[in-house]
Amino acid sequence: MDKNLIYGHHPVVEAIQSGKAVEKVFFQQGVRGELEKEIRQLTKAHDIPMQVVPKEKLNRMVRGQHQGVIAYLSLVSYQSIEDVLPFIYESGETPLLVLLDSITDVRNFGAICRSAYCAGAHAVIVPQSGSALANEDAMKASAGALAHVRLCRVRSLFSTVEWLQASGVQVVATALTDRAIDIDKADLSGPTAILMGAEGEGVHPKLLKMSDAVVKIPQVAGFDSYNVSVATGIALYETLRQRKNG
Amino acid sequence: MDKNLIYGHHPVVEAIQSGKAVEKVFFQQGVRGELEKEIRQLTKAHDIPMQVVPKEKLNRMVRGQHQGVIAYLSLVSYQSIEDVLPFIYESGETPLLVLLDSITDVRNFGAICRSAYCAGAHAVIVPQSGSALANEDAMKASAGALAHVRLCRVRSLFSTVEWLQASGVQVVATALTDRAIDIDKADLSGPTAILMGAEGEGVHPKLLKMSDAVVKIPQVAGFDSYNVSVATGIALYETLRQRKNG
Repeated sequence: MDKNLIYGHHPVVEAIQSGKAVEKVFFQQGVRGELEKEIRQLTKAHDIPMQVVPKEKLNRMVRGQHQGVIAYLSLVSYQSIEDVLPFIYESGETPLLVLLDSITDVRNFGAICRSAYCAGAHAVIVPQSGSALANEDAMKASAGALAHVRLCRVRSLFSTVEWLQASGVQVVATALTDRAIDIDKADLSGPTAILMGAEGEGVHPKLLKMSDAVVKIPQVAGFDSYNVSVATGIALYETLRQRKNG
Repeated sequence: MDKNLIYGHHPVVEAIQSGKAVEKVFFQQGVRGELEKEIRQLTKAHDIPMQVVPKEKLNRMVRGQHQGVIAYLSLVSYQSIEDVLPFIYESGETPLLVLLDSITDVRNFGAICRSAYCAGAHAVIVPQSGSALANEDAMKASAGALAHVRLCRVRSLFSTVEWLQASGVQVVATALTDRAIDIDKADLSGPTAILMGAEGEGVHPKLLKMSDAVVKIPQVAGFDSYNVSVATGIALYETLRQRKNG
């Protein structure tokens, strides 16, 4: 059993109230009443994602009596992008951010964090729901970088994109659409957030539309495309290359 | 049990003699005599890697009586780089090859093959011994690209590097050594083989010395470095970028 799991009504409530970094709360489908109300309020107040799952899933997660609620303790601490961005500007650096839309694969998430850390990206931003857990597998895939890279969790990618743009950061989405230009033709020298979508799905159409630019990584084979962690690495490399030579 | 395993003296000998693509033969430590002699001769004659392993490892691989020998059938077919290179030149293309030194992790191997295929690399070259198995996990990590990319298996990377250089292909190694220049400062527009080493170990010192250039991918964090499959993706991207704009 994962040592980062806490389960049962009181232990979970206590963990959240005592300020423990909780990655996510799993809550049993169909459970109503005071327990549900309390957990809903607490997770909302502490900005903790809550996922409703069938009882069978909870049963598989722990051996003991979970009473319908399990909390996954975070291996990392999240920061607020509203706090982080002014700090980057004040330190005289040009913001380089990575926005992840629906990257649920923990290995890809970990690998992306490793590249982001190596490339000196100032933060990796993930939405509260529909993201990979920052768990042991993600940590392993990141070769430990997950503990070093600055992670920000936001309630909505849509409002974050708007907020970044209002704060002087261009949002550059990667996608293989007709509108996309080759990434080396985009100007990445200014404050930039690179927006990556999940494999297969890609970036959400509404986010694509909101983006300041849509770029693609040149490829020869029509078959498939680069793995999302490789694509992120290439986008970060191209940014560093432009800034180094600019 | 893996359906690509064949075991027992006669089945293995027959598989090799009938020309089945065998990825590797695992042979039991300490077994001597006619069986050993026959398997050694056969694998050598058919350029099949043979690895001597403890009996316990063989016992874990199959449930049946293996009699000290197990063959892993290949999911892919290997080609000869001596055949492939003239073919690339004749088709009027500029060779772009990937040389893998001691990449034993099947996931990294698969991910590299996916990037190589997307980038239109003409071949991925691996040495006979000390390489990852082109197995189901590698196939999965490659998102199927392993079945499409051209794979060449060579007896020695040293003589292959020499042969490539004599054939007009520059060998460019990636490493974080003092000698290394930033990859975008290297000229990758001509016939090029990109040489990647295993994570941690890096490229073999003798191969580094033989290389025409040693390049590094710019990074900000001192901690660790890019994952080898990400680094390969970046090196391939930089090559495509130079050739596109050159």
